[in-house]
Amino acid sequence: MNLSDLRVDGLRLRRSLETMAEIGGTSGGGVQRLALTPEDKQARDLLVSWLEELETVVTVDEMGNIFGRSGASDDSLAPVMAGSHADSQPKGGRFDGILGVMGALEVLRTFKDHGIQTERPVVLVDWTNEEGSRFAPAMMSSGVWSGKLARDWVWQRTDVQGNVLVDELERVGYKGTQPCASWPLHAYYELHIEQGPILERAGKTIGVPKGIVCLHWYDIYVDGEANQVGPTPMEGRRDALCASAEMILKVRDLPASVGGDLVATVGELQNYPNSRNIIPDHVHFTVDIRSWDDALALRSWERLRADFEAIAARHRCPIRIEETWRAEHTEFAEYLVDRVSSTAEALGYSTLRMTSGAGHDATYAATVGPTAMIFVPSIAGRSHVEVENTTWEDCTAGANVLLHCVLQTASERPA
Amino acid sequence: MNLSDLRVDGLRLRRSLETMAEIGGTSGGGVQRLALTPEDKQARDLLVSWLEELETVVTVDEMGNIFGRSGASDDSLAPVMAGSHADSQPKGGRFDGILGVMGALEVLRTFKDHGIQTERPVVLVDWTNEEGSRFAPAMMSSGVWSGKLARDWVWQRTDVQGNVLVDELERVGYKGTQPCASWPLHAYYELHIEQGPILERAGKTIGVPKGIVCLHWYDIYVDGEANQVGPTPMEGRRDALCASAEMILKVRDLPASVGGDLVATVGELQNYPNSRNIIPDHVHFTVDIRSWDDALALRSWERLRADFEAIAARHRCPIRIEETWRAEHTEFAEYLVDRVSSTAEALGYSTLRMTSGAGHDATYAATVGPTAMIFVPSIAGRSHVEVENTTWEDCTAGANVLLHCVLQTASERPA
Repeated sequence: MNLSDLRVDGLRLRRSLETMAEIGGTSGGGVQRLALTPEDKQARDLLVSWLEELETVVTVDEMGNIFGRSGASDDSLAPVMAGSHADSQPKGGRFDGILGVMGALEVLRTFKDHGIQTERPVVLVDWTNEEGSRFAPAMMSSGVWSGKLARDWVWQRTDVQGNVLVDELERVGYKGTQPCASWPLHAYYELHIEQGPILERAGKTIGVPKGIVCLHWYDIYVDGEANQVGPTPMEGRRDALCASAEMILKVRDLPASVGGDLVATVGELQNYPNSRNIIPDHVHFTVDIRSWDDALALRSWERLRADFEAIAARHRCPIRIEETWRAEHTEFAEYLVDRVSSTAEALGYSTLRMTSGAGHDATYAATVGPTAMIFVPSIAGRSHVEVENTTWEDCTAGANVLLHCVLQTASERPA
Repeated sequence: MNLSDLRVDGLRLRRSLETMAEIGGTSGGGVQRLALTPEDKQARDLLVSWLEELETVVTVDEMGNIFGRSGASDDSLAPVMAGSHADSQPKGGRFDGILGVMGALEVLRTFKDHGIQTERPVVLVDWTNEEGSRFAPAMMSSGVWSGKLARDWVWQRTDVQGNVLVDELERVGYKGTQPCASWPLHAYYELHIEQGPILERAGKTIGVPKGIVCLHWYDIYVDGEANQVGPTPMEGRRDALCASAEMILKVRDLPASVGGDLVATVGELQNYPNSRNIIPDHVHFTVDIRSWDDALALRSWERLRADFEAIAARHRCPIRIEETWRAEHTEFAEYLVDRVSSTAEALGYSTLRMTSGAGHDATYAATVGPTAMIFVPSIAGRSHVEVENTTWEDCTAGANVLLHCVLQTASERPA
């Protein structure tokens, strides 16, 4: 057959995803498969069995990352990697992460169906604990692999029950012996659901992110004065929740006022003493700011910070601000991004250039070698929830784009 | 001596309060003496021992209310009662409640010092669990005594650990055998800290509340749509916390817009899923509205409710509203209120007519017989906190007013 006519088996991909969705499946139609739980182990065991059926060389590193390496014409060449993660959020969906792993598996299966051996090795990867739900931080194992996070520090991360990550790696039998360290990487592709509504709104099938937006996290602590609500007149109150409510609305209004692609969100809030008849004297809330434009994000934060301080002064509610975390935006390799786009179009799929608003293991992979991602639409933009959904047709389309990107890239000889 | 020259022993009152403050004393200078805990038991035992020294007849009813009844010229006459409660808020203060009990004790001690026997019996009362911090609702035992709450229902109330109230009454040895039911009441006086800043701001010593404001409690549930914050544009979000922030500011602005003495507060708020990178899809918050004018409180609520519904519609965040509890305002007996005022003035103390913004056991006592309260200033208006404070001079002043009110009222013969 003409290689350009090659396609994945969409029905087989669907069955792989459906089989995986049974592992940790929830009554609400989602998946709960937190990193290094029995469910994660079961998914790993199944993945490994499937990789062994394909006669790939399976290795597990000391962070539990699973690699399945196909034979190549020249095994000494830097490989093309493709994958994502099998862990989920609590009450998460059936596509986030696992689509990228099953997509890469389907690519390897399609190669095997047609007896295709690529010039370069192709390596499927399942990164441990991308979500960061059970053990913080997120994307920790691609972080260690890329050399950006220290293995020993990550090993000692604990979950809310106090379980230590390295112990949990051992418990599920996925503390491998291979050092967790990067190797020369010819390219990394990650197929993933968009997790937003942009493709659906635009009526496009394949999203082509040029990279990942910057991410700034802030923690705000507002102090007021607790008093019995009844005997305390409105005049003279120092209500930390009222001050915080004004600040929350400033966060919401920030993107419209600064322009650009900025998004800003208060996701977390704790109120103290949190009693219906006591004026709140302490509020903690978080601010999450993202943009492709790091400088815009910084300027916007400075503006927001000034607004916060003015509100705090007006309410006589002292404020403490922690600049908790800042990650600059990640630019993917332009030629790989172009390849994703042209490959999708050659396959007859509509495309949309975009940015990724969420972090992915591709963030760290991009620090090691040329990286690109392939997005498929999330129905109603929903993700990290049980109703997260993507049509099987779109899953197949994404896998076909991955197939041809990998095929072309794995055929490239050293310059 | 001329009875009008009679005064309490301010130093002894101070020592009683200081001794009680050691029971459950906190490192921050406050008191943590939750109802029916070992600390509450210790305070009760001490109170009973002091009452026995005074040769009062001590009885404990089946709600654990402690009564100390002094001998009278005619024991068949309806008594004058005075007291309050010995339990505290978690990390509460050294005056809330216990001042009214120690003030009544000081009155009985002063009578004994001077060999005064009143015409009517005088009954000191320590009501069980006024605060409602450990077991809801507040003021439960005066509620049962007055017949407004059912004993068996109250007995089955549980704390957050699941401990059942009636078991805890037994455990501390204060499940008495006397039925918890009211008797003919000639008058009830409750000396209490103001718990607000009004007396201090006005520079007055004795607050003379004409009654207790009405109290309306509402529970608001706002639903949004959870999504990953990064990939979800601002446009089209359904953020339950942003909608709630607008509602919180409407609550704050309500009193100024409706006029009158209304206060309105959001004290409690829970945000879900409360993750810094997920748009909140569910918020619960409470609204507390108080006013002397029940109709104003109702009209204001209707206005607020309409505002809430408009905000909910604009944010496409469905709202559910529970009208959790409404208590109408309580009017004290006018002639007793006047007596508090004239007694204080005759003693040379400055007075201020006011309302009580907080509920007290007096609320229920007023349904049984003529009732009045005596307020003394709270420094900086603080209460329910460890720094809650009142000067010893003001404590003494309040006890002197109580002394002469009780003396006069207990001398009244049946008409």
